[in-house]
Amino acid sequence: MRIAVDVMGGDMGPAEMIPGALMARDQYGAQVIFVGDEETIKAHLKENGRDESDIEIVHAADSISMDEDPLAAVRHKRDSSMVVAAKLVREKKAQAAVTSGSTGALVAAGPLVVGRLKGASRPALATPIPTVGGHPCVILDIGANPECQAKNLLEFAIMGSAYASALLGIDNPSIGLLSNGTEASKGTSVIVQANQMLSGSGLNFVGNIEARSIFYGEADVVVMDGFAGNVVLKLSEGLGSAIFDMVKEEMSKGCMVKAGALLVKPALKSVKRRMDYSEYGGAPLLGLSGLLVKAHGSSNRKAFANAIRVTSELLDRGLVEKMSQSLSAMVDGEA
Amino acid sequence: MRIAVDVMGGDMGPAEMIPGALMARDQYGAQVIFVGDEETIKAHLKENGRDESDIEIVHAADSISMDEDPLAAVRHKRDSSMVVAAKLVREKKAQAAVTSGSTGALVAAGPLVVGRLKGASRPALATPIPTVGGHPCVILDIGANPECQAKNLLEFAIMGSAYASALLGIDNPSIGLLSNGTEASKGTSVIVQANQMLSGSGLNFVGNIEARSIFYGEADVVVMDGFAGNVVLKLSEGLGSAIFDMVKEEMSKGCMVKAGALLVKPALKSVKRRMDYSEYGGAPLLGLSGLLVKAHGSSNRKAFANAIRVTSELLDRGLVEKMSQSLSAMVDGEA
Repeated sequence: MRIAVDVMGGDMGPAEMIPGALMARDQYGAQVIFVGDEETIKAHLKENGRDESDIEIVHAADSISMDEDPLAAVRHKRDSSMVVAAKLVREKKAQAAVTSGSTGALVAAGPLVVGRLKGASRPALATPIPTVGGHPCVILDIGANPECQAKNLLEFAIMGSAYASALLGIDNPSIGLLSNGTEASKGTSVIVQANQMLSGSGLNFVGNIEARSIFYGEADVVVMDGFAGNVVLKLSEGLGSAIFDMVKEEMSKGCMVKAGALLVKPALKSVKRRMDYSEYGGAPLLGLSGLLVKAHGSSNRKAFANAIRVTSELLDRGLVEKMSQSLSAMVDGEA
Repeated sequence: MRIAVDVMGGDMGPAEMIPGALMARDQYGAQVIFVGDEETIKAHLKENGRDESDIEIVHAADSISMDEDPLAAVRHKRDSSMVVAAKLVREKKAQAAVTSGSTGALVAAGPLVVGRLKGASRPALATPIPTVGGHPCVILDIGANPECQAKNLLEFAIMGSAYASALLGIDNPSIGLLSNGTEASKGTSVIVQANQMLSGSGLNFVGNIEARSIFYGEADVVVMDGFAGNVVLKLSEGLGSAIFDMVKEEMSKGCMVKAGALLVKPALKSVKRRMDYSEYGGAPLLGLSGLLVKAHGSSNRKAFANAIRVTSELLDRGLVEKMSQSLSAMVDGEA
């Protein structure tokens, strides 16, 4: 299984992404294709004391910046590292591409460059998020489709089920539908319809769940539209930071508390790490005939290597094939 | 300003709500009308060593439970304590009603029993939530209207502005619109349209804001539909508890950390209290010709008294009149 790695993206750029890709290759045995400006890559390989003949490089003259219009960039910058990496997936020269570049561009490149699986009318971005005392919970869509129909949510459930199964090693993951109440009658008209479709889908559907339950592992997968998904993700990040900021503020008051703060610092750090979903290896765009994986924009080499490692494992576990089969079965069931 | 208090609701019932109403009356000088089963009220007054002749009681033979269909309950249980309290507001015998009963019933009772203000096509439930290092942020709608049109969001902004101004003592509060990106083009078609309407509204509109910014006080008021509002509120509760549970888990590991945990316990408690939005006095249903205020279902006497006190202050500051004027001005501007 070969992975095309866009080494030009992310806040830290090639200086961090290239060592990250090397780590994934050497320590985790991932079969990495380095995609980006050839000279830049060669210079960084030299800096890291590596022989370039050892490494597969595919040159991409251009790159997409974070502030460009994603759709226009993917359409017009055909030589950008992200589009070139996605093309390698379309041409089956790679089975997945990993980038820490623009999420919007990745979402546009999926259907435009790689192509959709039969039955996946809208690819969706998924991510695992931490829960209390259990394995992570997979949520999707986290931003690819702000507005959804009930049918899209059903497709997300099928894709999320395959992904959670491959990522977490769970058979027949339980699926929840995010709503503003647990009763089947709760939510917008789209949610009410999606609840009915999911109930008859043959998936392990556990019904509507409320946002508070996500962090307590009430379902292995929670399905939502991309607007709600963005709210869930951004709110979790914001509130997580806010709580830690408040705890810091409070712990700077009074000598005894300050002394205690030093002692519990490792515990707080450990919780902060648990809350950091980038630990779980990036967010895949599901529903394509290959995997496109978004590593966090702020990824350092270790986080980037981790995203590549997880991607490699997902491929080994046959995620794309299984997702394709489930989606096809749904389409055939309708026909 | 008189406040009709439904003393039959909440997880703790009359045994806690009646002393709460007494506290609000005696300590905060609120003019409280006790609404509920007369015998129960009299028995509790006696238990608290109070002379019943001192207290204004309006008898309500029935009450609405949490698991009833809210709309049916409000329609058919005309003698329930919540409906009787709302009727007192409609008849101008009280200017506000406070309850810790069913939120759904409160939302139904607003337009059905009290009646809407001109220009408020959909009453909205609002609540203050804590932010880092500043005053709370008002969010609405938090659940009354899962599905909204752009016009409703504009009305929420007008109502939220008046409420934040009265609650927090801010002139011309800044208004943000929750979206999945700060650019005006981001969001669903309804959000994009609402952004345009808010930009031309004369309100102090600061544009779209992302969920993470809510807790950092980027706007005094953040407007959203009731589905998103429910997600924001429930997620905050859930994640807040989850983080504290994880911190506890980590702090029970290792002797040094355990010792530190004892020292920082007060600091953590203080943060937990700051995160508890019930401290801010309940959630008002805005857009009615009177105030209906929902105190948290788990309110004890102190929290309930606090909700009554805040309601009394909002009335004194002319919230309903100011909201009515702003909404009328919008309608007149359209004509």
